[in-house]
Amino acid sequence: MQLHLSTWAEVETYLQSSKGVILPIGSTEQHGPNGLVGTDAICAEVIARGVGDATGALVGPTIPVGMAVHHMEFPGSMTLKPSTLIALLRDYVGSLVEHGFERFFFVNGHGGNIATVRAAFYEIHAEQRALKGRSGPDLRFTLVSWWENAEIGRLSREFYQGKEGSHATPSEVSLTQYAYPDAIKTVAMEPEQAPAGGFHDARDFRRRYPDGRIGSAPGLASPEHGKQLYDAAVGAIAAQYRSFLAES
Amino acid sequence: MQLHLSTWAEVETYLQSSKGVILPIGSTEQHGPNGLVGTDAICAEVIARGVGDATGALVGPTIPVGMAVHHMEFPGSMTLKPSTLIALLRDYVGSLVEHGFERFFFVNGHGGNIATVRAAFYEIHAEQRALKGRSGPDLRFTLVSWWENAEIGRLSREFYQGKEGSHATPSEVSLTQYAYPDAIKTVAMEPEQAPAGGFHDARDFRRRYPDGRIGSAPGLASPEHGKQLYDAAVGAIAAQYRSFLAES
Amino acid sequence: MQLHLSTWAEVETYLQSSKGVILPIGSTEQHGPNGLVGTDAICAEVIARGVGDATGALVGPTIPVGMAVHHMEFPGSMTLKPSTLIALLRDYVGSLVEHGFERFFFVNGHGGNIATVRAAFYEIHAEQRALKGRSGPDLRFTLVSWWENAEIGRLSREFYQGKEGSHATPSEVSLTQYAYPDAIKTVAMEPEQAPAGGFHDARDFRRRYPDGRIGSAPGLASPEHGKQLYDAAVGAIAAQYRSFLAES
Amino acid sequence: MQLHLSTWAEVETYLQSSKGVILPIGSTEQHGPNGLVGTDAICAEVIARGVGDATGALVGPTIPVGMAVHHMEFPGSMTLKPSTLIALLRDYVGSLVEHGFERFFFVNGHGGNIATVRAAFYEIHAEQRALKGRSGPDLRFTLVSWWENAEIGRLSREFYQGKEGSHATPSEVSLTQYAYPDAIKTVAMEPEQAPAGGFHDARDFRRRYPDGRIGSAPGLASPEHGKQLYDAAVGAIAAQYRSFLAES
Amino acid sequence: MQLHLSTWAEVETYLQSSKGVILPIGSTEQHGPNGLVGTDAICAEVIARGVGDATGALVGPTIPVGMAVHHMEFPGSMTLKPSTLIALLRDYVGSLVEHGFERFFFVNGHGGNIATVRAAFYEIHAEQRALKGRSGPDLRFTLVSWWENAEIGRLSREFYQGKEGSHATPSEVSLTQYAYPDAIKTVAMEPEQAPAGGFHDARDFRRRYPDGRIGSAPGLASPEHGKQLYDAAVGAIAAQYRSFLAES
Amino acid sequence: MQLHLSTWAEVETYLQSSKGVILPIGSTEQHGPNGLVGTDAICAEVIARGVGDATGALVGPTIPVGMAVHHMEFPGSMTLKPSTLIALLRDYVGSLVEHGFERFFFVNGHGGNIATVRAAFYEIHAEQRALKGRSGPDLRFTLVSWWENAEIGRLSREFYQGKEGSHATPSEVSLTQYAYPDAIKTVAMEPEQAPAGGFHDARDFRRRYPDGRIGSAPGLASPEHGKQLYDAAVGAIAAQYRSFLAES
Ligand code: NI
Ligand code: NI
Ligand code: NI
Ligand code: NI
Ligand code: NI
Ligand code: NI
Repeated sequence: MQLHLSTWAEVETYLQSSKGVILPIGSTEQHGPNGLVGTDAICAEVIARGVGDATGALVGPTIPVGMAVHHMEFPGSMTLKPSTLIALLRDYVGSLVEHGFERFFFVNGHGGNIATVRAAFYEIHAEQRALKGRSGPDLRFTLVSWWENAEIGRLSREFYQGKEGSHATPSEVSLTQYAYPDAIKTVAMEPEQAPAGGFHDARDFRRRYPDGRIGSAPGLASPEHGKQLYDAAVGAIAAQYRSFLAES
Repeated sequence: MQLHLSTWAEVETYLQSSKGVILPIGSTEQHGPNGLVGTDAICAEVIARGVGDATGALVGPTIPVGMAVHHMEFPGSMTLKPSTLIALLRDYVGSLVEHGFERFFFVNGHGGNIATVRAAFYEIHAEQRALKGRSGPDLRFTLVSWWENAEIGRLSREFYQGKEGSHATPSEVSLTQYAYPDAIKTVAMEPEQAPAGGFHDARDFRRRYPDGRIGSAPGLASPEHGKQLYDAAVGAIAAQYRSFLAES
Repeated sequence: MQLHLSTWAEVETYLQSSKGVILPIGSTEQHGPNGLVGTDAICAEVIARGVGDATGALVGPTIPVGMAVHHMEFPGSMTLKPSTLIALLRDYVGSLVEHGFERFFFVNGHGGNIATVRAAFYEIHAEQRALKGRSGPDLRFTLVSWWENAEIGRLSREFYQGKEGSHATPSEVSLTQYAYPDAIKTVAMEPEQAPAGGFHDARDFRRRYPDGRIGSAPGLASPEHGKQLYDAAVGAIAAQYRSFLAES
Repeated sequence: MQLHLSTWAEVETYLQSSKGVILPIGSTEQHGPNGLVGTDAICAEVIARGVGDATGALVGPTIPVGMAVHHMEFPGSMTLKPSTLIALLRDYVGSLVEHGFERFFFVNGHGGNIATVRAAFYEIHAEQRALKGRSGPDLRFTLVSWWENAEIGRLSREFYQGKEGSHATPSEVSLTQYAYPDAIKTVAMEPEQAPAGGFHDARDFRRRYPDGRIGSAPGLASPEHGKQLYDAAVGAIAAQYRSFLAES
Repeated sequence: MQLHLSTWAEVETYLQSSKGVILPIGSTEQHGPNGLVGTDAICAEVIARGVGDATGALVGPTIPVGMAVHHMEFPGSMTLKPSTLIALLRDYVGSLVEHGFERFFFVNGHGGNIATVRAAFYEIHAEQRALKGRSGPDLRFTLVSWWENAEIGRLSREFYQGKEGSHATPSEVSLTQYAYPDAIKTVAMEPEQAPAGGFHDARDFRRRYPDGRIGSAPGLASPEHGKQLYDAAVGAIAAQYRSFLAES
Repeated sequence: MQLHLSTWAEVETYLQSSKGVILPIGSTEQHGPNGLVGTDAICAEVIARGVGDATGALVGPTIPVGMAVHHMEFPGSMTLKPSTLIALLRDYVGSLVEHGFERFFFVNGHGGNIATVRAAFYEIHAEQRALKGRSGPDLRFTLVSWWENAEIGRLSREFYQGKEGSHATPSEVSLTQYAYPDAIKTVAMEPEQAPAGGFHDARDFRRRYPDGRIGSAPGLASPEHGKQLYDAAVGAIAAQYRSFLAES
């Protein structure tokens, strides 16, 4: 059930049986030669909606722009400053708390969001406690990155045999190819697998990884892989969502 | 050309011929008995993409949650505080300015955004001037609400004959029915046309307009209307975008 | 009744019969060759005080500096960033709410304030709702620009016959000449009527309108006009204030 | 020379011979049984203007609402939070720096402002340094409370003989009676001289000083005293302004 | 009793007999040729702990970095912007209020902190009042600079006979020599006593006081002086703490 | 070399040979029945100073209060909101950047800080880039939690054999016993090893872990263990610091 495709009365009805909501969060940033700028938002959105379909959970609007300060040397990359993203999450959650939501399950498409989103959870806990005292609602948050489960790990190893890398990966490119087959890009890449490593700021990132990839061989991506990765992620994360709601 | 479906290299190429970008901004808020919570985001997004197709402009990610403090008494409504929306817009624009964009054309789906977005334009001008002095880039912003043009006015009068109203209108509901035919809701409404008027805070809104509509008869909506409204809006706004870029 | 010229006990007494307050908001910015930098603050202040006299309403302190980012290329212009003006309004209103005021009627002297002030109204609604929940006081705000009424429109057309323009207008200059006859400036202007149009940032404003006027012929101003404009504005806005308080 | 009564061209001319500006800052807060809510703003404003007349200095707009959190238990008191006042001062000064002003002389009417205004001076120094580096303009600030000079001390002792007190003083009430003779209030006070002491928060203030006075006997005020105090303050502070500008 | 060396259960026990807490606040900034960068933090910390020992009060963590914008031209100096220090103090106090603390006694080591800390007290009062209304706890704050008492004044005159100065003073250097005898620095200074005076921004400070001292002769410092100054400060401030708690 | 025990001239000399600085960050929060409220700050501080001694690195002031929102149900716990901690880190780093520092090595004592500190690194990168453009200094940050290295893992397993847990661990308690032998607490604990698991907000934490421990048996702690843990951590982290500086 998508919030954007529901009426307010349908949401009112939903709240009679669940206090849970799924919120996809992505990023708008370079994803190498053949990856889409919207890769992380697309992955988070399609998987979150799949999990919503599988579990009956309400899925809120996708946060399309995340924390991508380190990608800013590549045209098209957009970022919220961490402090802005924290404010946005505070407002999103605060809005939903007004209606009675208490369980916030974020489906994440971008590693760069993790620290800031986790910081935001505590910012929200602190603010809600300040406003409502110790008798406020029992709010719970979790952030699940779609690739952090055994099923995806297994498929990635099977498909890419050590060429997954950590940015602009064949897995995420495959997922977007499955979701948007009309937007598949064919681009020659040299070398096939990019160098791996860490980075500091945006300039350092571009200096080390001039085409935007880190350790990956996204030329191996295919929409067929994407379909299998999608199914695996939805299955794994649907189970995590159910556990999250069931937690005492 | 959608930013989310492009690679960074494609954006780099685009920037060689244009410094313009279209940014859709919507809202996530109640839209009466048969209107979708995502109505304003959907309208802004589909029209912005249509304008992008018509003009070759790059279309950035849709801002799905806007300024809807006054809708918060209806389940499912979400809002950014004005100060948060200003910060978000500052970061969006600031990101794109780093890549060389200078013309920001916002396609708006929600009247409640207008004041805050216009305030944000000046916040951004002030910040850019502080950071870069008088020799910074020549940044220009405009906000176009999709219904504010003669073509839409004419169709609305023809289709709804004074029953358009000002919130949860048959025009916007028609547009979403055209965009998402699988999400058309059939809901009886009493009276057919809601009372018209103003409002103050969220409680006052709900007290005056208990089902969420203001002055409108959204039961008159149809996907066929939506198609004609879509075509009209895209045509009108594409012309506005071209003028905006051509302005000296 | 001016707040600044009252004792706290007089305010306490006032609150027994009214929860309304008038707050003038102006700007400190260039107003062309013969217009005062304080024009907008002066107009808002004198009209607000006139309305206070006519209705018995309490008139709070004038906000002298508003949102004038676009005037900053002219010496003497001052501005608050929109985010600062929002914070200021939040504190002004929040202070008065503590004493029991619930109806806030802003008399505005500057078009550039409108968007930010309206954004601020929602920032305040959101904050008060967060702090006090749904049982907080029923706060209402309105912003009335002194020139936006039929009476002023009629006089302007009669006096200036299409040479009113939109910045540094003969109407506002006349009002200040009536209020501060010792500060009337005699300055030759070429051409008599400035070019009309829009603008983007401060540099663009100065480039298009090098002496600061937009579309206006403020050489036509006179203190006699100012007297008539003052009376008309006070009459019209006093009626609006009474309606605002009477609204259910 | 008042900024509000000058044209931008007059300011431009002024800047050719001086980089100094005087900014009055007051407060809007209870001042006991016969003191005006606007006492501190009135005192700062009239003295600043007198100093401007005496020295030829430009006098900017009065900041009418200051830091008066501790007065909020008395109707009519208004306050900016310290963080808001800092932001306001940053914007005021930042605006004027754009035009070339470098010497900021604040004439203060309210002891409660001192800490926050001094904090703001460093906030501004830090921001200007961050924005402009070590080669930015040589900005200087001072805050002069009108009563902190030997002349006022002497008159106060002569007139009130130990009954000046520290809030709602006969000196400041006299000054406002001189400035606004039509607003002189005659109110019986019991005891003639209020108890002296300190205070913590707003509730503590009201508990200790139920009519708002601290240590003062404002029934001794007179407009004749006000005239002498005005002249003394203007003379003393004009000398301080000249020294401030002359400082190497 | 140091908070850092206590268990939470010990704090719980402490709260049964006292609502008071001592918070040392220092600075990290240049202190002339032989003064430590940590001088102000060290002085505040050791004296606060001495007062804690003398009175049984709980002593919280030292705030090591304060408001030192004006020292930033000397390597090693660190500063919080005033707005950051206000936020920090708001969080410190807000945390302790949650546990039931109501009396906050700051022992200060740095004159530059005074304005900002006093501003913060009102920021906190305003926030607590907004959150809790008039029935919130009765919070009280005081800031005591360790040198502002008669005992220290007397010793300083005896030891340094007019060569105390106002920054990098022999008194504070002596205190750190007593506290950290292994970190005593022997540095020739020319002249023995630095010039006295005021300053504006960081550049102005360094221009006037090239080795960082103002009016002082810190070569006169000794650990023996430090011991006597320490004892005097602890005695004087312990008495002030007891009075603060006893205040009705 | 401790910043607090150095003169500014010594820092100036240090900067001629190194741009690196170590910053310890702790927390002030409950650590179970026998753990000190200052445990995390103490551990970070003593290890950072040991690393400074081993490598010749400059060690800045310890950040004593971190992000501990989830500990606030236990008396004595203090927290900065994540947004405040981000602002503090921005000011700390910004200060040091002014002097030429470019390599920031944070030694962390508290898992709850990790997300917020990492978010802060990007906030700082974004701000520095906005202020200085692409030609600003090459700033690098890393955060090393003292227990995240093989040596500590090995000792923990040897000493505690699965009873380390994740909060109020015997390792950290041992370290503080080594550092502050006079503050060793002897408290009976039942059961010896606390239950393990996760938590949500502060109330949830206390409900699950009523004495504050998670999964740990801190009764096993000893100062002798602390000595070995200290040596191991200093050795491991000194090597990491050297690598960090050597990184190209
Ligand atoms: Ni990605
Ligand atoms: Ni709508
Ligand atoms: Ni005007
Ligand atoms: Ni006063
Ligand atoms: Ni000092
Ligand atoms: Ni710990």
